[in-house]
Amino acid sequence: MVAERQNSKMVTRTVDLRSDTVTKPTEAMRAAMANAEVDDDVLGYDPTASILETEMAEIMGKEAALFVPSGTMGNLISVLVHCDIRGSEVILGHNSHIHIYENGGISTLGGVHSRTVQNNKDGTMDIDLIEAAIRDPRGSLVYPTTRLICLENSQANCGGRCLSIEYTDRVGELAKKHGLKLHIDGARIFNAAVALGVAVDRLVQAADSVSVCLSKGLGAPVGSVVAGSKSFIAKARILRKTLGGGMRQVGILCAAALVAIQENVRKLEDDHKKAKTLAEGLNQIKGLRVDVAAVETNIVYLEIEEGSKYTAETLRKSLEQHGILVMLAGRLRIRIVLHHQISASDVQFALSCFQQASTGVQGENGK
Amino acid sequence: MVAERQNSKMVTRTVDLRSDTVTKPTEAMRAAMANAEVDDDVLGYDPTASILETEMAEIMGKEAALFVPSGTMGNLISVLVHCDIRGSEVILGHNSHIHIYENGGISTLGGVHSRTVQNNKDGTMDIDLIEAAIRDPRGSLVYPTTRLICLENSQANCGGRCLSIEYTDRVGELAKKHGLKLHIDGARIFNAAVALGVAVDRLVQAADSVSVCLSKGLGAPVGSVVAGSKSFIAKARILRKTLGGGMRQVGILCAAALVAIQENVRKLEDDHKKAKTLAEGLNQIKGLRVDVAAVETNIVYLEIEEGSKYTAETLRKSLEQHGILVMLAGRLRIRIVLHHQISASDVQFALSCFQQASTGVQGENGK
Amino acid sequence: MVAERQNSKMVTRTVDLRSDTVTKPTEAMRAAMANAEVDDDVLGYDPTASILETEMAEIMGKEAALFVPSGTMGNLISVLVHCDIRGSEVILGHNSHIHIYENGGISTLGGVHSRTVQNNKDGTMDIDLIEAAIRDPRGSLVYPTTRLICLENSQANCGGRCLSIEYTDRVGELAKKHGLKLHIDGARIFNAAVALGVAVDRLVQAADSVSVCLSKGLGAPVGSVVAGSKSFIAKARILRKTLGGGMRQVGILCAAALVAIQENVRKLEDDHKKAKTLAEGLNQIKGLRVDVAAVETNIVYLEIEEGSKYTAETLRKSLEQHGILVMLAGRLRIRIVLHHQISASDVQFALSCFQQASTGVQGENGK
Amino acid sequence: MVAERQNSKMVTRTVDLRSDTVTKPTEAMRAAMANAEVDDDVLGYDPTASILETEMAEIMGKEAALFVPSGTMGNLISVLVHCDIRGSEVILGHNSHIHIYENGGISTLGGVHSRTVQNNKDGTMDIDLIEAAIRDPRGSLVYPTTRLICLENSQANCGGRCLSIEYTDRVGELAKKHGLKLHIDGARIFNAAVALGVAVDRLVQAADSVSVCLSKGLGAPVGSVVAGSKSFIAKARILRKTLGGGMRQVGILCAAALVAIQENVRKLEDDHKKAKTLAEGLNQIKGLRVDVAAVETNIVYLEIEEGSKYTAETLRKSLEQHGILVMLAGRLRIRIVLHHQISASDVQFALSCFQQASTGVQGENGK
Repeated sequence: MVAERQNSKMVTRTVDLRSDTVTKPTEAMRAAMANAEVDDDVLGYDPTASILETEMAEIMGKEAALFVPSGTMGNLISVLVHCDIRGSEVILGHNSHIHIYENGGISTLGGVHSRTVQNNKDGTMDIDLIEAAIRDPRGSLVYPTTRLICLENSQANCGGRCLSIEYTDRVGELAKKHGLKLHIDGARIFNAAVALGVAVDRLVQAADSVSVCLSKGLGAPVGSVVAGSKSFIAKARILRKTLGGGMRQVGILCAAALVAIQENVRKLEDDHKKAKTLAEGLNQIKGLRVDVAAVETNIVYLEIEEGSKYTAETLRKSLEQHGILVMLAGRLRIRIVLHHQISASDVQFALSCFQQASTGVQGENGK
Repeated sequence: MVAERQNSKMVTRTVDLRSDTVTKPTEAMRAAMANAEVDDDVLGYDPTASILETEMAEIMGKEAALFVPSGTMGNLISVLVHCDIRGSEVILGHNSHIHIYENGGISTLGGVHSRTVQNNKDGTMDIDLIEAAIRDPRGSLVYPTTRLICLENSQANCGGRCLSIEYTDRVGELAKKHGLKLHIDGARIFNAAVALGVAVDRLVQAADSVSVCLSKGLGAPVGSVVAGSKSFIAKARILRKTLGGGMRQVGILCAAALVAIQENVRKLEDDHKKAKTLAEGLNQIKGLRVDVAAVETNIVYLEIEEGSKYTAETLRKSLEQHGILVMLAGRLRIRIVLHHQISASDVQFALSCFQQASTGVQGENGK
Repeated sequence: MVAERQNSKMVTRTVDLRSDTVTKPTEAMRAAMANAEVDDDVLGYDPTASILETEMAEIMGKEAALFVPSGTMGNLISVLVHCDIRGSEVILGHNSHIHIYENGGISTLGGVHSRTVQNNKDGTMDIDLIEAAIRDPRGSLVYPTTRLICLENSQANCGGRCLSIEYTDRVGELAKKHGLKLHIDGARIFNAAVALGVAVDRLVQAADSVSVCLSKGLGAPVGSVVAGSKSFIAKARILRKTLGGGMRQVGILCAAALVAIQENVRKLEDDHKKAKTLAEGLNQIKGLRVDVAAVETNIVYLEIEEGSKYTAETLRKSLEQHGILVMLAGRLRIRIVLHHQISASDVQFALSCFQQASTGVQGENGK
Repeated sequence: MVAERQNSKMVTRTVDLRSDTVTKPTEAMRAAMANAEVDDDVLGYDPTASILETEMAEIMGKEAALFVPSGTMGNLISVLVHCDIRGSEVILGHNSHIHIYENGGISTLGGVHSRTVQNNKDGTMDIDLIEAAIRDPRGSLVYPTTRLICLENSQANCGGRCLSIEYTDRVGELAKKHGLKLHIDGARIFNAAVALGVAVDRLVQAADSVSVCLSKGLGAPVGSVVAGSKSFIAKARILRKTLGGGMRQVGILCAAALVAIQENVRKLEDDHKKAKTLAEGLNQIKGLRVDVAAVETNIVYLEIEEGSKYTAETLRKSLEQHGILVMLAGRLRIRIVLHHQISASDVQFALSCFQQASTGVQGENGK
């Protein structure tokens, strides 16, 4: 999921499908930022930040919430607060965002030892494998102490697939049984709730903490929120300061986030439909394969057939010349993400470009 | 320097002297934020962030710069980049902001060992004491490895006093002689440059890295910048991501910061004059003492005479009822900071409130 | 692999099969300790330690070696020296000793992020899975930096099975290709070399560092050695001091270790034969299963058939009453380790006790 | 305090005054090691280690004790157990062994932030300075959390001077008042107790933990002990394993340590007398100065007068040619340590060599 700055090309139309983080703030967000009431959120509390945090806590069904600059910081803070004692171990999916895409920060900065369990294709980890990974407290002379289980919902690296209430609750019960905490990396938890047709607070009910990204599908320019108990958030606030995530008149960003919640949660369903349409269309193109049934939210993984005349990288470059930006996810794998600033027409345009690009690339290579 | 949220009181006029971080964004900043051109600064580069970073690099006379959410993150990143090998030690002032007010993050998160040297009253550390603190490389079996010296300019905890070009250069030479790096915590480096009447880039010329706060005297709502060599900034960018300081459409905040630089650097001289006026006025009040000559920038430390009927805390509370907000700096010590949103009239109002409050508190306690 | 102190029972004969760490020093070792020439190994070098280190370096085919108090410290030092820069990641087997039985120290104390690859039944990790786990350097914004691959030979947690020269060399080539280091946890590398019928130095030739335990099969009372390049050992020496592993007149222990090498390497073959004999015998007992073909060295894993009337724990307790000490390795799994102080007669005695105990336990439970 | 291996010279008699760590095991120790009853101290408990730990716990007046490979590990474990929560700060003397000579391990490996207080000439830290260094818990947003105060007794780097019961108790009361723990680095606590004429357990009564070195003045070949409450030692045992300090048949070393306690505690008084004699003699030599009154235990710091024709380094080299080994402690400062294997005659011989060497060096340089 590595990206480099695109060279500006003479393209008549750009459709940026690299991530749902690329959205631009809407007019309403810009107006809200221009008019936000703000104060020093480090010395005390910024009023707009307080409103956002209160609202997010309520939506998540938790006692309190805290605005942070990024989802990475939200996860880092959550893991480190739950694992605040030296010698802690966290159980998490081998394909999870925290394990793969966050620089190993929980270990590098926090000294938390990672114990991975295999993610199934749908992103679940078998409950009995999770239980088997929990360290026997009698072995503490040679074992780190398991303190936390992390889930991710929806799961970026597992096709954007969702974990159900039932599954989440079962992991929550397992955690309780063993005196562990449960954190949900809910960067796209709204996508999951919408796809599953359930309330967000119910979906994360079993979790002791949840991080939620405001600048992915929701389209806010910057920020995430972590939610949990009051004591969790009190510790999170201190750790945010330690990490350098305390920001002064942060209400500016929170004002945009408040608009994002109001405007864009209801658009997610449409994003999912567009993803399905795109997936189905791509699956029709010769040499490309999409597991259409697995497209549950706004993420589409495209597989290039082995033996094709192009690779993910050459296809990506060719698409870029048509104005379509996508992200590599392997030698023969491309990741596409839909969001509210991609229209139905953009989807059709993208499909036609894929058609042309895949042919074009073939042509080039086929000479 | 602990503060809690102020209870809202029925005050006709509030003069917030707790810090120069409490400024509100100006109309021009709000307009700039509303109109900023932005992009995903994590996937690639946000154009407004790039402009700010280029401009700040130029002002600081360094190859490159990077926007970060806070001064704490700026310092944390700088120390950790210079001390990226396990077993590193940093030499820094015993009163420095990094050592006292940043949660010990360089050690807690980065494992960097701190070796302090006494700050003199003017904030300098004796050059020979710094040199004596550098570890003998032959002793590496029992010693950590000194890799970095940190200076702070101006120095919050040493009365806002400035370090001269000459002093800074001498420390820089010492660092070079021993193969060490020099970082300057320049949260208020513009204040120092203005007070000393020198160019900022000359003042930090000897430094391998410098952090600069945009949301203190410059009045931007959020953010700091670190500047250094290209390779330093490349590493800083990675570490910013690890810490969770990578932000998406961060151009919003950078747009305000660009205005702040344009609008407010030239106002700093006036802030310093107001500080001097306030210092002189306070020094006239019975029971209060200010070392007026030591007020070089926008910070004033007020000492309450031993044996007074009030303490810093009771005086602070009394002032609060008059609408004057200040910060505790000890049992008999109060910190006051001026900024561009404090007018000459506010200074006079504050002085009259101090006069009343100090009398009033005495009265209360004297009953 | 949790053990608690055995209650002293009235047993006529004790056969301790818990580990090859339980051996007692021989008379020759005791004499050597009593007469060892020693000096302060922290201030300078202890002469007997120097002899041992030189000899072990030669045996391992490396430039230099260092005595350490334990295999855990040997591995910890090795990983931390190779991963001395913040943000490092190590690739290692999901069943490896470092990952499972060393308290997560490389992360807890060293901040090294662990990336596990599945160990096959024979302990190997598929070469292409290792390669896939190596982080793309272009992704350094979100990825830690892979710096090290760890192998273990023989592999305690994979039935004591051995990795061949060919396999090790292939992993070494992979490491070189990607600029990584290769560390071999060779706690039982002599067992592996003997079982494979190869020279130890050839077996670890591809490794940048190797740790070797002297107090397992070799029977020394205390200690391990790490071997590698001169510069690796120089760094290891410093880190040993930091960890508190620098010992003064350590020649006492090294003298015993020198005897251990001389006396016991040649006994390992016999240990392996005894393990095979025991494995075959156990496999004959109703309700017990051993994969005899997988017994390549001195470790035997015994599986209790699902549905048996006893568990590993009840069988262990019953055996204890017969004077046979074994270690739990799961609910239905027992680990047995042979060593030079277990005689052929002990093996037969143990077998008869297993027979009785398994019947007896059944009887008890069957009442 | 850097030392390198001495070149072997043709010297008729060597008097090693570098440290009290250089003693050789006595015949009784060697016999005890040759006959020690031992077992696997990692899987369970080694009987001789248990005896030593019980005895040391009793001597220290604490519930339990644990043998560790070195004093550095004893201190590291103690600090890390007391500071097991991320964000901890320790208050310790700026000249303390932990701060200066232990590689910064508490930070490098444990992330504990160090806050130093100036040691007075006699090694004490002013009680009010310690109190001022304790962080205000209300400032936890910007402050690390003070959890521990460390004292050292006697104090290697402060002339081997002792802290009295009264002083120690006062620091203990301060710690209790603020909910902090008190650790005493008692590497040479027996020297302090003997010099003060008090019982060791009374001297460390106020401490929550104490580390004691067995291989300094007591003359055991290897090892230290930490003592504290049962729960402290339980955590210390786990951390010892994590650090790699768990050793198998460690009773070998403990047997020697038991002899050391029995044989050598009573010899410490004589060591102190020899130190005094040496100090007085050195102070008579032209160009050398010793603060004789400050020589309270077995350590002597020798100052070379500014303007002398030799430095500490040239004097050290010259002495080495006479067979007298000493340690550098600065450009014009030499550290000398007495122990039970230095006889009264050795002291006189050393004095005569100092006399000759200082003249000789002068001569050389004076040509």
